[in-house]
Formats: sequence, structure tokens, C-alpha cells
Amino acid sequence: MENKILLTEQEIPRFYYNIMADMPNKPLPPLHPGTKQPITPDLLEPLFPRDLILQEVSTERYIEIPREVREIYAKYRPSPLFRARGLEKMLDTPARIYYKYEGVSPAGSHKPNTAIAQAFYSYVSGAKRIVTETGAGQWGTALAYACQKFGLECEVYMVRVSYDQKPYRKIMMNTFDASVYPSPSDRTEFGRRVLAENPDSSGSLGIAISEAIERALQDPQAHYALGSVLNHVLLHQTIIGQEAIIQMEKAGDQPDIVVAPFGGGSNFAGIAFPFLHKNFSEKQNIRCIAVEPTSCPKLTRGEFRYDFGDTAGMTPLLPMYTLGHDFMPPSIHAGGLRYHGAGVLVSQLLKDGLIDAVAKDQASCFKAGLDFIKAEGIIPAPEATHAIATVIDEAMKCKEEGTEKTILFNLCGHGYFDMASYESYLSGELKDATISNEEISQSIASTNELQPQ
Amino acid sequence: MENKILLTEQEIPRFYYNIMADMPNKPLPPLHPGTKQPITPDLLEPLFPRDLILQEVSTERYIEIPREVREIYAKYRPSPLFRARGLEKMLDTPARIYYKYEGVSPAGSHKPNTAIAQAFYSYVSGAKRIVTETGAGQWGTALAYACQKFGLECEVYMVRVSYDQKPYRKIMMNTFDASVYPSPSDRTEFGRRVLAENPDSSGSLGIAISEAIERALQDPQAHYALGSVLNHVLLHQTIIGQEAIIQMEKAGDQPDIVVAPFGGGSNFAGIAFPFLHKNFSEKQNIRCIAVEPTSCPKLTRGEFRYDFGDTAGMTPLLPMYTLGHDFMPPSIHAGGLRYHGAGVLVSQLLKDGLIDAVAKDQASCFKAGLDFIKAEGIIPAPEATHAIATVIDEAMKCKEEGTEKTILFNLCGHGYFDMASYESYLSGELKDATISNEEISQSIASTNELQPQ
Repeated sequence: MENKILLTEQEIPRFYYNIMADMPNKPLPPLHPGTKQPITPDLLEPLFPRDLILQEVSTERYIEIPREVREIYAKYRPSPLFRARGLEKMLDTPARIYYKYEGVSPAGSHKPNTAIAQAFYSYVSGAKRIVTETGAGQWGTALAYACQKFGLECEVYMVRVSYDQKPYRKIMMNTFDASVYPSPSDRTEFGRRVLAENPDSSGSLGIAISEAIERALQDPQAHYALGSVLNHVLLHQTIIGQEAIIQMEKAGDQPDIVVAPFGGGSNFAGIAFPFLHKNFSEKQNIRCIAVEPTSCPKLTRGEFRYDFGDTAGMTPLLPMYTLGHDFMPPSIHAGGLRYHGAGVLVSQLLKDGLIDAVAKDQASCFKAGLDFIKAEGIIPAPEATHAIATVIDEAMKCKEEGTEKTILFNLCGHGYFDMASYESYLSGELKDATISNEEISQSIASTNELQPQ
Repeated sequence: MENKILLTEQEIPRFYYNIMADMPNKPLPPLHPGTKQPITPDLLEPLFPRDLILQEVSTERYIEIPREVREIYAKYRPSPLFRARGLEKMLDTPARIYYKYEGVSPAGSHKPNTAIAQAFYSYVSGAKRIVTETGAGQWGTALAYACQKFGLECEVYMVRVSYDQKPYRKIMMNTFDASVYPSPSDRTEFGRRVLAENPDSSGSLGIAISEAIERALQDPQAHYALGSVLNHVLLHQTIIGQEAIIQMEKAGDQPDIVVAPFGGGSNFAGIAFPFLHKNFSEKQNIRCIAVEPTSCPKLTRGEFRYDFGDTAGMTPLLPMYTLGHDFMPPSIHAGGLRYHGAGVLVSQLLKDGLIDAVAKDQASCFKAGLDFIKAEGIIPAPEATHAIATVIDEAMKCKEEGTEKTILFNLCGHGYFDMASYESYLSGELKDATISNEEISQSIASTNELQPQ
């Protein structure tokens, strides 16, 4: 009757799992926004270290994790796998529920898994600093931590709504020596343009990405880093699911359903891709569900098409489910899920019917989060409550149907910096943000001209 | 080269270690404030369950941990023991540094270790609710969690300075269904008296204790619970040190020095008492150091005498190092260390020269905390930084002397709710609070009339 399944540092995986090797349909290539031809890797060299560019296009199934990266992982990994006995009891469900808890990392989320790898490759390539954006602050904190480990400077553009909602996240980045600026800022041409149009702009991840890329392009000693969406970022997160596979085996169980919140894809990919590998290689039938907020519904209401990764249109065109690159998501509390598009790998898998997606509204997510706090004694990040709400739905379905499914989800981070959002829910002040079909159509229309033949 | 030493749930200790059995000089008895005669256990029955009153006076060396309590411990225990390789490297010291990390608990500190036990005994004795006070909020959170586990109501009086500094702690208690009031409050006669004298009172643990006791005495279905100071509270925390002994053995090492922050004694006792048992039973010579803030220096500048545990004088008289029960500590950020007295067991051990005490000022503690964040990637609670500052002193001494000592400390909690205090240090706004000898003498003088012959 163990509550947690722990692994030793020797059991930290030695390779990342690259799902590209196993996908029945490989993703379409990224396109140059001018020529609309597939981009060549050298175009990305001003922004990323060569190792990451190679990972971005690699079709090797396993990519070795550098020793230096594994040594830093060992400070907090392997992360624990918990059996959610308290939640099972509260729901009185025949389902067995497990969660992989990534909140034990220095940033309090799964984000350091890729931040450490990215900082390492920038460091060995001779860069002096990394510029990035952050939504809820999880990614910025992770990169600040990772940069400090390798003696790199770190400059973070933080979406203004989160910068204002979560001052403690900013201070946390400062304790790791990072410089943090609210975005839109007056430090970039694009930021100044946005502010000129709307001085009260609450910002978006798309805007912050444009600012960070602009800064990185101006500085030959700087790299840019992204916390989700890109193939190499999703790759690094597969360490989560690989550990979970070992842990589920130790528990003598196997998931029927794997659930994760969905922002750009790294959280979901991290836990789900290694289980999808089982579907591909062992003909298993594990159902993987990505959960997005109803207020930023690219997977369930967006369209699959080429679009920019940022708002200013500085990135290559990526083939993905999108709401349009100038979609401005409402200021919901799960800041990490406020992104207009879905990573290319996840988009292709969804298009091919190999994974599922659902959308949950904010209020039911916070309700699920509070149930989880009472049942399990851990405060989940608002992002993570999206997974929990869906897990509860599935567990209640098991109860109705009398089926004993095993459900695994990624508890991607703790909510210690998100107590204000819990208070706004508890006090009844939280208003949910919904999006009309018209709004979505208009926003997607902005990408039309970009579609290739 | 492991970074962390983990134990299985089967290795959770089955007994608390009661140092009373081994102390060369047993502590003096608590006295009735009126008669000045030793109190009898039945006097405490309106406040505490009988099991805890028996534990308070027990001289049995080992006291069994109830199965129900161990089951809840297993949600977060055994807590990890870390080797502080990052800190060792940063200090370039020959010392080997380890820390026991209690921040993994649902409250984020060591406090649930006793809260769960106390709530359990109140529950089996038929109480419906528990009233308590809290300083920094760690204890209140722990008791809120524990009460919710046993279906008890929880009412918390929170020292106003912390209530104002740490709104998120209050919300966290609310998520566990507790009611939280700033103290001094208008809900008690004593609170109203304090407010009448000083409407802007920032409160103190002593005042909050008086309020909580007053409420509990009025309600026959309520118990009172204390988060430190009392013998049974210190007893429950010995689970920390017992686990640490197993973990140090697994690491193939033994501490020469054990360090913990000091508020009322439970943090220090938790890690140190099991090692003192080694001193008593195996003639070892492990040096145990309690670290208090210079602004609340009962161990290093207080006097050993009978004093009240609270400000209103409602508790029995306890033989302890004290600054006087109406000592009003300055509003330092380590709210958990703002208490006028030291627990009876620790006081007797200090008087007998069996443990050491040092005081550290706030600024050097925050500096040590920031070094620790960079070296180890964990944000310590301000209370915990007192231990870290002392560990760094000792490690630097090893460096100067060229000695290879092993140092273990209790990282009693995380600082995710204390980021504002880090910011005030980083921005240079943090002012340290010092106390004059005259102030201490005057405050101690108030206890004079209470001394027995």
C-alpha cells in the first residue's frame, strides 16, 4: 500500500525519446515566411545552438542526455510518482489514479527538464546569455535556474498579466540572478509598437516571444530559448514519461489513460510520448488526453494550418492547430496555457487521431484543484488543475460504468505562487472567459494568406 | 555520488523518541500560577486530549506512533536527506554538509509531524474542533491540513504582522477549510484588551496563544493545540532525526554537528534529540546547535526561570529560558522564531551544557539563504536560513582549520510564501531589529514575582 513510487538517481533515463522516429505521418516542414519554402537549419543558427537545431529535425529514436545535464537533473530527479489514494477515496471510484509530481523541481514545475538541457547546449556553444519569454513564470524561473548553473546571463520577458498577478515569481527569478521585464516592454521595437496601440495591453505569450527573439537577434552573444512548442523542447520532457513507465511497472500497474494539461505541448508530450511509444511499438491502446482551457481552445476549436509561433511574425511558419497568431487569449489564471498554437508534433498526432483533446473551463478546474488539495494535500498549479478536472471526469465515468481503469496524469507543478487565483475562486470573484466562434474565425482568418498550395 | 538519500514508507519510524528518559537532570515541573505547586494532569484536560497529557509527562523512552498517524505521514514521509554538494562547492570547504528537507510536507514545513498526531488524539477523544495560534503561518497550515484529514474544524489566530505580510498563507489555510483571524482580534476578551491599549498592535505569538486558549476554554467540544514548546510536540518531531540517522548511515557518514533554527524548540528537538540519544547511549560527542534570531534571543541572552507560555498568563508556569512573557519581539521576517521562551526540555539541556545556542542577525541569514538558493536550487523559509547561516560559519571554520567535519541541518521548510521578505532584502529595505540589554532586563523583570523558593 505504498503512496509513492520512488526511483534512485541511477534510474534517471540516459536518453530522450524522440517520437519523430515512430510517427506514421511525419510533420510537415516549417516554412520560411518570405519564400514559403522549407527552412534550412542554418537559418536558425543566430537563435539556437547547433545541437538543438539538430535535435529539432532529428529522426533518431533515442538521443543521449549529456552527463552534465543528468548531474543537474539528479538534484531533483527522478520525480516521485504518487498513487492518489485520497482522491480515489473522495470520488469513491473503482479507477486507480496515479500522478507524476514535477513540482519537486527548483522551479516548481517540469520546465527545468528542458531549461537545463538548453542552457547546457548554449553554454558549450559559447553563448554568454539567453533571452526568453515567460507566461505564468514557470518557464522563466526554470531558465533562470539553469542559466545560473552554467554561469550564463538570463533576460526574461514576462507577460504583463502574470507579472502583475504573480510578483513572487519575478522575485524568484531575481534570486537566480535573472533580469525580468514585463511584456509588452519599451525595450524592443515590437514592444513599443504594441504599447503605442494599447498602453494597457495585458500582453500575451506571442508578444513576449516576439520581444525575446528581437533582443536575441540583436546580440551575437545571445541565444533565444523557448519553453514549449518546439520539437527539441518536447523531446527533453520525455524524461517524465520514461520515468513514469518504470514507476508504473514497479507499482505493478499500467495506465489505460494518460492525461496532461496543454499549453504549447511540452507538458503533455513529456508524460504522453513515451506511452505513445508503447502504442506504436507494442500495439498497446493507451488513450492520451491533452486538456486545454475553454478560453484558449486551439486543439478543440482551432484549425490545422501554417501559422507563426509569435505575434510579430518573426518565427518560421509552423504546421499546427492554431487560433491565429494574433489571437489574444483572455487573462485567465492558468497563464501557462495562454498560447495561440499547439506544437507541431502534437498537432500532427491529433490530426492523425492518435491522441485526444478536451477543453475545461476555469471554474471547474479550480473546483477540481480544491478537491485535490483536500484529498492529496498538494496545491496544484492552475495549469495542472486542467488535468485534474479531466481525471475526475474519467474516474467518475469509471464509477458509473463500474470499470476499473488506471489513470495517470502529469501534476506538472505546484501552485504556491498562485494562491491569489485560488482566493479569487474561493471568494466568488473568478469570472470565466469564453470565446465566441466569430472571434475565433476572425483570428484564424489572419493566417489565411500564409497557407501554401 | 548520490545527491539525495531516500527511504521507503516501510522505513518510517514506528516510535517517537522521548528524550525525557535519558536526560541526566529531568526538567522541573510546571507550576500552577496561583498555588505555585506542580500542576496535576487533570488541570490540562479542558485543553488537551488525555493521550497528549500522558505523553507530556511520560518518561518512557519510546512511544508508539498510531497506525492512523503513520498512514498520513506516508503521504510525504520519509522526507529526503540531501547532500549539499552545491553549497560545499560554493564554499570550497572540506566539510561535508547534509540537510533533511521537511519542505516536502503538505504545509511546506516540519509542522504536520505533530499536527497530524495532535489532531488524531483529539479526534479519538471526541473533540469536534481545535483552536490554535500561528506565527508565520506554517503551524496553522499544518493543523488546518491535519484537522481536515480527521473531519475536525480548525480555528486559527494568526499573529497580525504575519497575517499582513503573508496573505497566501491565510488562503492556504482556507483551502483546508480552516477559519483564520488576525491576532489580536476582537473575538476574545484578551484580544479586545490588547487592542484597546494599542489598536495597531502587530501581535505576538504570546498574545495569539492567549486568544486561542481563551476560545478553547469556552467551548467544551474544542481542544487547544500548540505547534512547539510543549514536550509532546517536541516528541512528535523526533521522527525527523530518527529518519536522518538511518539516512546518514546509508550515506556512510555521521554528523559531527547538528544545526537547527530555534523558535520554541520543536524544529531543533526534531532533528537533534535522536542524535543526543546517541550522545547519551553510545557516548558520542555530536554537537547540537540551536540558532535563534538576535532580535529574539532567549537562549543566548534570556534567563532560566519560571515564566508563562503566553502573554495573558493563562498557561502553567514553565521552567525555561525566557525574555519575559510580555516581551514584544520586533517584526522580523522569520515569524516562526518570534517567541519569548524556549521549550522546557531544550531549556534544561542548555542549562546542563548538553547543547549549544547561537544567535544570528536577519541580514546575514537572508544572505546565507540567497547563497543556498543559488547553490542548491531550493528556497528556504526565513526560519531555515538561521540554520544555514550557522552551517556556513561552521563550514568556513572547517576550511580555515583544514578539518573535514560532517554537518547536518534541518531545512525545516520552503520559503515560497516568503518571497516578499527576500525582496525586501534584495532591494536593501530590510532593516535588522536589535534589542538593548535594558529592554531585556525590564521584560525579564516582569517574571520576578513568579519565582518559587
